[in-house]
Amino acid sequence: MMKRIAVLTSGGDSPGMNAAVRAVVRTALYHGMETIGVMRGFEGLMDGDCMTLDRAAVGGIIHRGGTILRTARSERFKTEAGQRAALVQMENRKVDALVVIGGDGSFRGALELEKKGLPVIGIPGTIDNDIAGTDVTIGYDTAVNTALSAVQKLRDTASSHDRLFIVEVMGRDAGFLALEVAVSSGAEYVVVPEIQLDIAKMCDHLHYSRKRGKTHSLIILAEGVMSAHELKNRLQDTGGYDARVTVLGYIQRGGSPSSFDTVLASRMGAFAVESLLEGKSGSMVCSICGQMTLCPLEDAWKSPKHLNPELLALVEKLSV
Amino acid sequence: MMKRIAVLTSGGDSPGMNAAVRAVVRTALYHGMETIGVMRGFEGLMDGDCMTLDRAAVGGIIHRGGTILRTARSERFKTEAGQRAALVQMENRKVDALVVIGGDGSFRGALELEKKGLPVIGIPGTIDNDIAGTDVTIGYDTAVNTALSAVQKLRDTASSHDRLFIVEVMGRDAGFLALEVAVSSGAEYVVVPEIQLDIAKMCDHLHYSRKRGKTHSLIILAEGVMSAHELKNRLQDTGGYDARVTVLGYIQRGGSPSSFDTVLASRMGAFAVESLLEGKSGSMVCSICGQMTLCPLEDAWKSPKHLNPELLALVEKLSV
Amino acid sequence: MMKRIAVLTSGGDSPGMNAAVRAVVRTALYHGMETIGVMRGFEGLMDGDCMTLDRAAVGGIIHRGGTILRTARSERFKTEAGQRAALVQMENRKVDALVVIGGDGSFRGALELEKKGLPVIGIPGTIDNDIAGTDVTIGYDTAVNTALSAVQKLRDTASSHDRLFIVEVMGRDAGFLALEVAVSSGAEYVVVPEIQLDIAKMCDHLHYSRKRGKTHSLIILAEGVMSAHELKNRLQDTGGYDARVTVLGYIQRGGSPSSFDTVLASRMGAFAVESLLEGKSGSMVCSICGQMTLCPLEDAWKSPKHLNPELLALVEKLSV
Amino acid sequence: MMKRIAVLTSGGDSPGMNAAVRAVVRTALYHGMETIGVMRGFEGLMDGDCMTLDRAAVGGIIHRGGTILRTARSERFKTEAGQRAALVQMENRKVDALVVIGGDGSFRGALELEKKGLPVIGIPGTIDNDIAGTDVTIGYDTAVNTALSAVQKLRDTASSHDRLFIVEVMGRDAGFLALEVAVSSGAEYVVVPEIQLDIAKMCDHLHYSRKRGKTHSLIILAEGVMSAHELKNRLQDTGGYDARVTVLGYIQRGGSPSSFDTVLASRMGAFAVESLLEGKSGSMVCSICGQMTLCPLEDAWKSPKHLNPELLALVEKLSV
Repeated sequence: MMKRIAVLTSGGDSPGMNAAVRAVVRTALYHGMETIGVMRGFEGLMDGDCMTLDRAAVGGIIHRGGTILRTARSERFKTEAGQRAALVQMENRKVDALVVIGGDGSFRGALELEKKGLPVIGIPGTIDNDIAGTDVTIGYDTAVNTALSAVQKLRDTASSHDRLFIVEVMGRDAGFLALEVAVSSGAEYVVVPEIQLDIAKMCDHLHYSRKRGKTHSLIILAEGVMSAHELKNRLQDTGGYDARVTVLGYIQRGGSPSSFDTVLASRMGAFAVESLLEGKSGSMVCSICGQMTLCPLEDAWKSPKHLNPELLALVEKLSV
Repeated sequence: MMKRIAVLTSGGDSPGMNAAVRAVVRTALYHGMETIGVMRGFEGLMDGDCMTLDRAAVGGIIHRGGTILRTARSERFKTEAGQRAALVQMENRKVDALVVIGGDGSFRGALELEKKGLPVIGIPGTIDNDIAGTDVTIGYDTAVNTALSAVQKLRDTASSHDRLFIVEVMGRDAGFLALEVAVSSGAEYVVVPEIQLDIAKMCDHLHYSRKRGKTHSLIILAEGVMSAHELKNRLQDTGGYDARVTVLGYIQRGGSPSSFDTVLASRMGAFAVESLLEGKSGSMVCSICGQMTLCPLEDAWKSPKHLNPELLALVEKLSV
Repeated sequence: MMKRIAVLTSGGDSPGMNAAVRAVVRTALYHGMETIGVMRGFEGLMDGDCMTLDRAAVGGIIHRGGTILRTARSERFKTEAGQRAALVQMENRKVDALVVIGGDGSFRGALELEKKGLPVIGIPGTIDNDIAGTDVTIGYDTAVNTALSAVQKLRDTASSHDRLFIVEVMGRDAGFLALEVAVSSGAEYVVVPEIQLDIAKMCDHLHYSRKRGKTHSLIILAEGVMSAHELKNRLQDTGGYDARVTVLGYIQRGGSPSSFDTVLASRMGAFAVESLLEGKSGSMVCSICGQMTLCPLEDAWKSPKHLNPELLALVEKLSV
Repeated sequence: MMKRIAVLTSGGDSPGMNAAVRAVVRTALYHGMETIGVMRGFEGLMDGDCMTLDRAAVGGIIHRGGTILRTARSERFKTEAGQRAALVQMENRKVDALVVIGGDGSFRGALELEKKGLPVIGIPGTIDNDIAGTDVTIGYDTAVNTALSAVQKLRDTASSHDRLFIVEVMGRDAGFLALEVAVSSGAEYVVVPEIQLDIAKMCDHLHYSRKRGKTHSLIILAEGVMSAHELKNRLQDTGGYDARVTVLGYIQRGGSPSSFDTVLASRMGAFAVESLLEGKSGSMVCSICGQMTLCPLEDAWKSPKHLNPELLALVEKLSV
């Protein structure tokens, strides 16, 4: 009979993590269980930096960006000793199971604990959407809207000054964020890791659209390809273009979660707790076609996740 | 061989309609076709109130709320004479096919034209999400976020004054908007047309949560159930509660479309044109599990569309 | 030598009140004093519903709407007995002075305490800007921007449907909010308590602008004149116009404070504490031409505060 | 008798420029005059790149960021030949006077035309607020709020990861934007060109606040001091701090103008036209204590404009 669960956030923070924590706590309470909040991810887990989260502790956090549990990256936890220390802390507190909110790196850590006997469920939280097995991750929709809103502001200046702008967005090694923002901002070009960049072809396009009267253009660049300054230099060298550069940076990680992310986080948090109650472990909560389901934690990094080719085609069709 | 298509927006406006119009025009151009924009929905169709939309005409509209083609409701078009007048206008302009962006009422009109020989594809655009056959409609995600943002502001005042607030949101006869906002705002209660309201039970809950120390509460009410003032009176009569009332009203229809709605509208617009090119007609563009597909126009109103019971349960679990 | 001050928020909440509380607490600490936060305004003052506010207690509240101290209206405090009870609470806690954040009603209460011996400084916090003696009040700039943002959304729908919209905004008996929003939204008309409404003339204008091709219009109505529904009926009766109505309501009170309001609140909070340290009492902090200064509390309600006639003229000049 | 005026925007674009253009056009019409819009600043003036702006041409632009007239920097206009060419274009079009919206560089150009006989009025439009003679410039309030909103998002991530963040904001050689954002974001430090930076002292403060338990800090850096990367390196070298860097960049220039900027721009545009009608020239429109007035164009760059020392003190008092 499960009586006490723990929850932690790990890796890069993403908007909606707090809504997930709230859902874990309240669903646990609904089913008669208690929740321990672990601070600073696996670091705090090894240190026993914990506190009981009651109803009130998660009141008013649903819309807050970041994570009230804080987060950290931990080298120490990658060692056998670190993992043992974490398990001891959980045993001492009579914790029956753990919910880990984070990305694939966090799930690798979670899996080690699972193998050593602690029931674990993962919730995918990252703005990069680069976790296979689930259609979407918590924070992605908010980050896309934050980036879109920034790009719209840049469009004002780009069109006022007849300029070429390069906007570097996040996404780690994947182009999900860049591609979605490119379509929704009506950008002229998108550069993603999944597609080989042909600078000469891009310069030809720019040349052609200038000739047709287009006075400004936007290029959305995924950070996983190269830095915006490098792309600027290559456009200068190859085509003589003088682009302006903006690196959106960490603002993409913050802000109140969108309605979509808040609902997703709430559903995932509740589903994680109820999966633990059903005896599930070693799994990640997935959203597939709008339904909550489980898949093995390994799926997060073992299977590849592909960009939608329809969206890639759209950027070209709609912007020219 | 298709050379010229027409596009119109009809019924209530919704954010993203302009992005859909842009996608129709640019995709048509991409495939060597011309697009005629019809003003004021079926009214303008009968009057021949049209203009050619070239690349530049749809530049800069992707993020604008409302519809540059304007919209109207038309009684005249429901008559045989009205429909004939519309067809004559289309013939005179050598229009080969029509794209109708709107809700189920608009699709009924579109189907009449289709039966009389004009190829027609519908694109579901309404903030109410009350169109069966498609998971989502253009404008719904934006409206949900607009309503959420308003409810968050009300929460500030509700918690500062220890008050009970009723917020009436749109949705026509359906509770999609109300339910999603209730989950994402962390509202204590949601009242939707699909579920019988039990005022006595709600008052019991309010009483119980007051006793447990909850000093303020939010009720999200779908307009399809009753007016916020009526609910206020019933809460007063049954439980002696003095609720404040806010009717969000038309602001839910406006604003820049969210990234999700802009991408959805862009994909649907492109898919509509390419479906016409493939000889399809009498169909509506649907988004099913993130994929674009077609279904018969009649599906928009013939099949029922259900609320997600998981979300209904979440409101209760997470807010108490 | 002053050692302990108290702070409360009273009347309607307004965005920026928390920033003012934070500034009071931190400035007091900077000068070696302690701050007691009083809950629920004068109600909590009489009940001794207080807590010490240390540095951490006001961390992270600078951007939060509403007031963490909550607020209430109190009939009991208008009595001699109520005021005596409040003074006893302050004496028991060895409070040397009180900062009251609120509107003119709150300052009347504050003045009674001052007359009975407790040093008091008032900080003008209300979205209505209807306090004489100060150019601006905390929350006004935020409320104006919130209302503007809502009106912009309505404009989308108004222009898409060729409609006449009436938007009722707050402001109590004054037209400051309505007038500023009318100018910044480019509204066609503004109706404020300070200017006699001539319905027949407004209908003439509407008729004239329709004839000139204007397809939609916005009327901004201050709540102090009449309800939006009443104005709608009068436009129907006098000119046959069918207007849509939106009452913005309490959303105008919430939300994160704008930069202007946050800076204003921070300056006023610091200035209030430092004025008390200089032995000042019975005064309100005023912002005059961007400088912080003091005026007697009575000025808040004794002197009239006038609308800027230049803005009234602008609405007519720029919108026609 | 004045019959036709011209208007142009020059230098960096700023939010509210379009509202000013609208006000110029509509006020001119109100007084029976016609307005010519000049594209791309002084470049377009020399080339005669103009168009008549009627009522409809400025409909719907009041809330748009950037400038519909576009803007450019011009070396050619600094020459006698360039200025002569501009005057010939104005004479050919029978333009009686010119309104120049921009910063001090633009006003230097405007003054040359004035000396050669063309009546000119300047309107201060820049997000930097670095123009003496006026309390505020068009776009400053919006840019401050845009930057604040970005910094709030960074705060989410900073506090979740226990990090030190440096945020570089615009402002050219002045610290107005940085200082206001530092106060309104509750930043721990502000670095502005007007105050000598003491890196050792900043490191001491950081050390002290870490010891007191502060886990994260924000430094707002004005671009006029050094780059964020340079400051990062200096903090690393002097105190061993590992700061994260964000350069807000061009997003600060874009977006819908705030209510304050829209009202300011509307008033300044109307006042410029009416000043020309009264025979004024060689002047800039100023906002002094909320009143519109005129000062010589030279004041824009001849007199120094000082930071408010009260705000500098506030950053220290309130954040520690």
